[in-house]
Amino acid sequence: MLPIAVDAMGGDHAPGAIVAGALAAAAEGTPILLVGPPDLKDQVDIGDLPLLEASEVIEMDEDGGRAVRRKKDSTLVRAAEAVRDGQASAMISAGNTGATMASALLRMGRIRGVKRPAIAAIIPVPGGSPTVLLDAGANAEVQADWLVQFAQMGSIFCRHRFGIAAPRVGLLSIGEEPGKGDSLRKEAFELLTVAAADNPDLDFIGNVEGRDVMGHAADVIVTDGFTGNVVLKTLEGGMRAVISGLLDAFGSTPEYKAHADALMPSLLPLYATLDPETYGGAMLVGVDGVCMIAHGSSSQRAILNAINFAREMVEADVVGEISAAIRPDDPTDDPG
Amino acid sequence: MLPIAVDAMGGDHAPGAIVAGALAAAAEGTPILLVGPPDLKDQVDIGDLPLLEASEVIEMDEDGGRAVRRKKDSTLVRAAEAVRDGQASAMISAGNTGATMASALLRMGRIRGVKRPAIAAIIPVPGGSPTVLLDAGANAEVQADWLVQFAQMGSIFCRHRFGIAAPRVGLLSIGEEPGKGDSLRKEAFELLTVAAADNPDLDFIGNVEGRDVMGHAADVIVTDGFTGNVVLKTLEGGMRAVISGLLDAFGSTPEYKAHADALMPSLLPLYATLDPETYGGAMLVGVDGVCMIAHGSSSQRAILNAINFAREMVEADVVGEISAAIRPDDPTDDPG
Repeated sequence: MLPIAVDAMGGDHAPGAIVAGALAAAAEGTPILLVGPPDLKDQVDIGDLPLLEASEVIEMDEDGGRAVRRKKDSTLVRAAEAVRDGQASAMISAGNTGATMASALLRMGRIRGVKRPAIAAIIPVPGGSPTVLLDAGANAEVQADWLVQFAQMGSIFCRHRFGIAAPRVGLLSIGEEPGKGDSLRKEAFELLTVAAADNPDLDFIGNVEGRDVMGHAADVIVTDGFTGNVVLKTLEGGMRAVISGLLDAFGSTPEYKAHADALMPSLLPLYATLDPETYGGAMLVGVDGVCMIAHGSSSQRAILNAINFAREMVEADVVGEISAAIRPDDPTDDPG
Repeated sequence: MLPIAVDAMGGDHAPGAIVAGALAAAAEGTPILLVGPPDLKDQVDIGDLPLLEASEVIEMDEDGGRAVRRKKDSTLVRAAEAVRDGQASAMISAGNTGATMASALLRMGRIRGVKRPAIAAIIPVPGGSPTVLLDAGANAEVQADWLVQFAQMGSIFCRHRFGIAAPRVGLLSIGEEPGKGDSLRKEAFELLTVAAADNPDLDFIGNVEGRDVMGHAADVIVTDGFTGNVVLKTLEGGMRAVISGLLDAFGSTPEYKAHADALMPSLLPLYATLDPETYGGAMLVGVDGVCMIAHGSSSQRAILNAINFAREMVEADVVGEISAAIRPDDPTDDPG
């Protein structure tokens, strides 16, 4: 397979943790193309990984769209071009999310017929398979028909990522009955019902509620990028608050600490389930190439997991499958 | 003080748990007016609590607005009328949330100048004071200027409920910088900035993100009722999933169980913080009377806490303070 392009300069722990994750993936047999500055090897040990040179770095706090237009020789833009030009099979960055989306969208383009790409995020579910939530932030405002495409793309993604043959798709709303929610949800409910009747690969189960996000009711949950991003970050913050509260309690006396230490092994599976590093990141679905968005705080292990995840998506040809599933409404649609 | 009207028939454990909670509150010296069917005392022991008779009950799955218009002799409608008519100082129900809102809105009316009432929900924060989140579901769609009123009402509520002299108000968005978010958030950001410049009682700190909901960055977070309801239920589901995962791990072997039993006392404060019953429920702010919305699953203890909470809000005259703070744009505004 073609190598996976890894933005060496994206993320809180770049380039050290990123390159270390890439080296670990290469050691497991995954071909890698690092994208970084010409002097990267003076900063960190890059082993014998090939380097695609890029002279600029987009910082975490820059406006994504503007930065991509201005910094044409940035690691993110060069990584996306490597996928576009057939030098790489996928791109991965733990850097600026907006710029990652913009570079993928502007350089790879959309899949023909896709109205808008979406971020497919993975929500861990203790005691079950994770929930795919999309859009987790690519589009602050959406139209109802985009949500139908998110449902299709999310189903394909979920099938290959988690091996669920017929993922159940829920529409995130405030009440389970049809017709609950705002006008966007009401329209989307109708469109999803029609689309599912017409499409055996789309199992629309109706509205779901917030409590189902970290639950077992649906495998894929579709929503607008504003709500999706708020939900994702609310859960991240909530999990962090509870884990920190638990650790404070466990350490509150030496006796409690001894019992807690003895209990720790029992908690490792739950901890692994909830750890965002386990899944390595989210996928930007709908662009014409595999683009993985890793968490800004990614460690070596998170990057390794993100690379493995990208490889799976490449090998399953998720992009080709989305392309086959989405029929352009308008034959003149030019996603370029 | 006037008695607190308690809907004896609302909630999963009605009337038993509801009446038991009301009896406990009466034993602590809070005057109570039960609202229930004439034969309530044949169903449960109501002690010597006074009963306002109502022949109908609105079920949990009925459409709230329709049910309130049709069931004019329901417990919920009679409870709201008791507040309107000066027979009660507050109403409480653990029943149908939509019908509770509709009965309060239609019978008590809005406070003059308030564009829309909002549900002020309480989000527990381990290691700190809770966050007031509004609107948690009264208005699936909102206008930007309603969010300014939610900020004012939420500040007053937070001040009295949690004794925070100058609550910091955040606008829930997807990025902290001004201008992040959808068009509603952009407009609301501007309006909140202007309102805060003009109003020393409103401390608008800018955008906050999902991770701040269960965090320490803001005391009050304002959003539309769609997002707020999704956030509230997402956290409820997330907390339930994690607690259930913990209990499974703790019980996985007899040895682990012994250590977990020894640790339990250290976890009680965190458990109490996270338990929705601790706060007893949410308040519908903006209607012309105190209306408390208790959780459907409320136990006796949750109802007792909700009654105590209602009493505090009555004694602090939160409704009068909101009324003084909100200046009607339109002197002909008739909230009737």
